[in-house]
Amino acid sequence: MHDFPEKNDILEAASRIEPFANRTPIFTSQNLNQISGANLFFKCENLQKTGSFKFRGACNAVFSLSESEARNGVATHSSGNHAQALALAAKFRGIPAYIVMPKNAAKPKVAAVREYGGIITFCQPNLRSREEVLKLVILRTNATEVHPYNYYRTICGQATAALELFEDAGQKLDIVMAPVGGGGLISGTALSANYFSPSTTVIAAEPQNANDAFLSFVAGHIIPAPQKPNTIADGLLTSLGSLTFPIIKKHVNKIVTVEEDDIIDAMKLIWERLKLVIEPSAAVVFAAILKGKVNVKGKNVGLILCGGNIDLQNIPW
Amino acid sequence: MHDFPEKNDILEAASRIEPFANRTPIFTSQNLNQISGANLFFKCENLQKTGSFKFRGACNAVFSLSESEARNGVATHSSGNHAQALALAAKFRGIPAYIVMPKNAAKPKVAAVREYGGIITFCQPNLRSREEVLKLVILRTNATEVHPYNYYRTICGQATAALELFEDAGQKLDIVMAPVGGGGLISGTALSANYFSPSTTVIAAEPQNANDAFLSFVAGHIIPAPQKPNTIADGLLTSLGSLTFPIIKKHVNKIVTVEEDDIIDAMKLIWERLKLVIEPSAAVVFAAILKGKVNVKGKNVGLILCGGNIDLQNIPW
Repeated sequence: MHDFPEKNDILEAASRIEPFANRTPIFTSQNLNQISGANLFFKCENLQKTGSFKFRGACNAVFSLSESEARNGVATHSSGNHAQALALAAKFRGIPAYIVMPKNAAKPKVAAVREYGGIITFCQPNLRSREEVLKLVILRTNATEVHPYNYYRTICGQATAALELFEDAGQKLDIVMAPVGGGGLISGTALSANYFSPSTTVIAAEPQNANDAFLSFVAGHIIPAPQKPNTIADGLLTSLGSLTFPIIKKHVNKIVTVEEDDIIDAMKLIWERLKLVIEPSAAVVFAAILKGKVNVKGKNVGLILCGGNIDLQNIPW
Repeated sequence: MHDFPEKNDILEAASRIEPFANRTPIFTSQNLNQISGANLFFKCENLQKTGSFKFRGACNAVFSLSESEARNGVATHSSGNHAQALALAAKFRGIPAYIVMPKNAAKPKVAAVREYGGIITFCQPNLRSREEVLKLVILRTNATEVHPYNYYRTICGQATAALELFEDAGQKLDIVMAPVGGGGLISGTALSANYFSPSTTVIAAEPQNANDAFLSFVAGHIIPAPQKPNTIADGLLTSLGSLTFPIIKKHVNKIVTVEEDDIIDAMKLIWERLKLVIEPSAAVVFAAILKGKVNVKGKNVGLILCGGNIDLQNIPW
């Protein structure tokens, strides 16, 4: 039916990104195990290059290009972690990265993309302008578009986080959890579970205030995210994609949702006990555990802490 | 002249604490290397059990006791990281830890000591009352006092952080740096450098507003810290000890001082770039590098990030 990426595509992605990406550590905490009643394995993608898992997908996409494709560079529209990730991946390959960003993007994000060598074109702060300007940039440069999630090479890169988690946890995981926004990370995670740890249950978590993935999962078709979801988890605002949703429908067992206050509490607890700076989107999964949305008692549970890019001037407590 | 701990005392401490303490990771960052012009190796003692290096010394002291000594437990006065460390170390050995704390100690600190099983006796919030109450507790229980720094078993435990740093850095370190309060960590670090990496320069850093170690170092005799030093680095308030100062005089090459604002800036930069929560005391060393107090250009520099216990409700920016 679906021509999903195969086992080998993920293994190839893993060796393709291996020289460039961090094999991020897995943190454990007896204290958080006690609180949750489970054995928790935190996969620290906040310690990934550029501060999020996005580098995996971007790196796999960039290094999948042929020499002649690569020469023209890569392009995307993003104001978030994917922009930095693509800029750095392109820098490693020595090719240009054209990043379309809304002209009201936060200055630190613009600076970070520039720091990694990204070539920025500003657009109006709406999806239509983003897409139009990106199209123009690609027409002009002949660069390859690297979509932040709706692209198999991106998905296969993201899948390597769960692959490493299964390999490095030292125990068989009963459950693996990741947040869901556009679905790149969770669909990659689900594919890796399917191929490399098929008895592991795959659970996605998302903010109640941006619960389009949950609604889509229940409805069986994509329900777009609202225009401006009111959630602190700013990495999880986007709608599911035509490529990520079928994988999620087939290989994700459950989607749970959490409230804003619980996201903040979970984030603070991780900062406090794991001594790790994570961003709100990364706390959503742990919030679901703390609020009993998933039955984890006595189980081995892998959680992907997706990123650590947060404005330290605006800590939400 | 001085009967300092020997090489073997440190090696024995290392194997004694090995089953209980984390062999903490070393973090590196290309970005922070660029900013500093050096190769920085951050030894992450914020990721140590109880959130600070203090667990090393406490653990070595607790597991150095004979069976008959151990039976009566251990005792100390501390409102900080040493209290939690001693409580947990004692818990691992299954013996009581009597902790004397000022009655105005912060509630989270009291809760943390209780969580690790410490038996708390409250005293008046001054050194005299602390010492008197501790004496009474020891008279009653016959427990062994474990001083937070002025005790060779504590010092040998702290020395293992630098030992691991030398072993794990993968490169010869030109400089090793640690903060100085009572001197337990820096004297242990200096001994380890002397025995295991003798060509490495040892540099201590302390807040300008609590510069008693610097003044003592220059004067050649201990100058006590002022009553209430006005510094955010609350782990570095104490005076040097009769056992730590001679080691520092002999084996530390230099003591540098930093301003309060620079400590905060350095702390924020580490949170932002390393995604690590560290406490202000742990940022003092990096602040010294950022402010050019040490010539690190092109050098391999080990920094001990001493701890990560900070009240997240009171972030200083």
